[in-house]
Amino acid sequence: MDETPGIKKIKEVRALCERGSSRRKTGLFVTEGERSYREIPPEDIVSTYVSESYKKEHPGTAYDYVLKDSEFLKLADTKHPQGILAVVKQRQYRIEDLLSGDLYIILESLQDPGNLGTIIRTAEAAGASAVIMNKGCTDIYSPKVVRSTMGSIFRLPFVYVERLEETINDMKRAGITVYAAALSGKSLPDIKLAERRAFVIGNEGNGLTEEILQLADERISIPMAGKVESLNAAVSAAILLYRF
Amino acid sequence: MDETPGIKKIKEVRALCERGSSRRKTGLFVTEGERSYREIPPEDIVSTYVSESYKKEHPGTAYDYVLKDSEFLKLADTKHPQGILAVVKQRQYRIEDLLSGDLYIILESLQDPGNLGTIIRTAEAAGASAVIMNKGCTDIYSPKVVRSTMGSIFRLPFVYVERLEETINDMKRAGITVYAAALSGKSLPDIKLAERRAFVIGNEGNGLTEEILQLADERISIPMAGKVESLNAAVSAAILLYRF
Repeated sequence: MDETPGIKKIKEVRALCERGSSRRKTGLFVTEGERSYREIPPEDIVSTYVSESYKKEHPGTAYDYVLKDSEFLKLADTKHPQGILAVVKQRQYRIEDLLSGDLYIILESLQDPGNLGTIIRTAEAAGASAVIMNKGCTDIYSPKVVRSTMGSIFRLPFVYVERLEETINDMKRAGITVYAAALSGKSLPDIKLAERRAFVIGNEGNGLTEEILQLADERISIPMAGKVESLNAAVSAAILLYRF
Repeated sequence: MDETPGIKKIKEVRALCERGSSRRKTGLFVTEGERSYREIPPEDIVSTYVSESYKKEHPGTAYDYVLKDSEFLKLADTKHPQGILAVVKQRQYRIEDLLSGDLYIILESLQDPGNLGTIIRTAEAAGASAVIMNKGCTDIYSPKVVRSTMGSIFRLPFVYVERLEETINDMKRAGITVYAAALSGKSLPDIKLAERRAFVIGNEGNGLTEEILQLADERISIPMAGKVESLNAAVSAAILLYRF
């Protein structure tokens, strides 16, 4: 096997890092770094790229392509790459298969990649069954989101749904109580939460749309002292998920 | 008054944005954007810079200097500045004056600016009395931290202390129970928290040092399901601060 990736391969990897359209078309994405690499289910790995230095320092690593350090730097999305990246198959979950759990986060048009990654990571830690997103949310397969999930992207089921209203109705029919995080809701400490529950978090700037607020079983608000106008979306999700 | 800032003024503002040393030497910092500007206590403002467009669109705004839009862009720290920034006096709090409250966050060598800003914002919302940091923490006056506090930097007291061990001892003597967030601690849901309390959060990669762990009254851990190794520092702070 020729271990040096051609220019075409390199362009493919760059496109997967930079363009959501390329990720959607191929059903692939890229993950960088040693720690992240160890988290990938082996059957999901399409190909592995290492730098010459990495190969030297980790003689046991299986890889498909090796690049000069300077070339690897151009391939990577981070400024200080660790010398290993993989092209990985996207996981496909179906919403119908995800409705038997007890704890969910639903996201409407969440924009910030760091927030999404942190929410995925926190949701796994809190024991959530899945994260459900509308199509207006940022792309979970962008390198920054993948990195900030710290591996949870490979373990926690998630799904983008076409029509969030329908999904919320399906969840309610499945016996899940849907709580909308809103500034004007009932105060969190005053609520006895249902055993099977989902929390809906909205866009960072605009919150939830009126349609979603109307659909939810209840609106809840996290009490805020001082003059704070709102909490960070990942912080709100964490406080709700970790309400015991 | 000559409203056009000279090259010297512009260099001063850039230095305040870019260099912690310049901020420490002058006791000043820079805050950008309209929303942030409205949060500054008027007595703290040293000088206000606006772009020509901003001046035209906001005829009522008091300002000291006006710049061409293209020049303002060079001055600002963000890619899409809103056309207003201010040079502001740093607040000086003394730890001795801050020990009569009930809720604190203590940070040891926290590095990520976004995390620090989010913690300041969340701490104000949770009704904390102050955030206490060792000198190893990232600079609260860097533009990214200032932005991500969303104005809380002007309202919530904070202090950098020389010797965190001494401060923790002072807090304990003042009747505050100090809880260290640690992976090996007692599980948060099993603890009845003291009424007056402080939570210590460590560095993103390394957690707390052994000295601080030893000093704390108790170690607590946030339960984590799945294979998550740790939570984001701002998320941990939020869950602890919002434990009712």
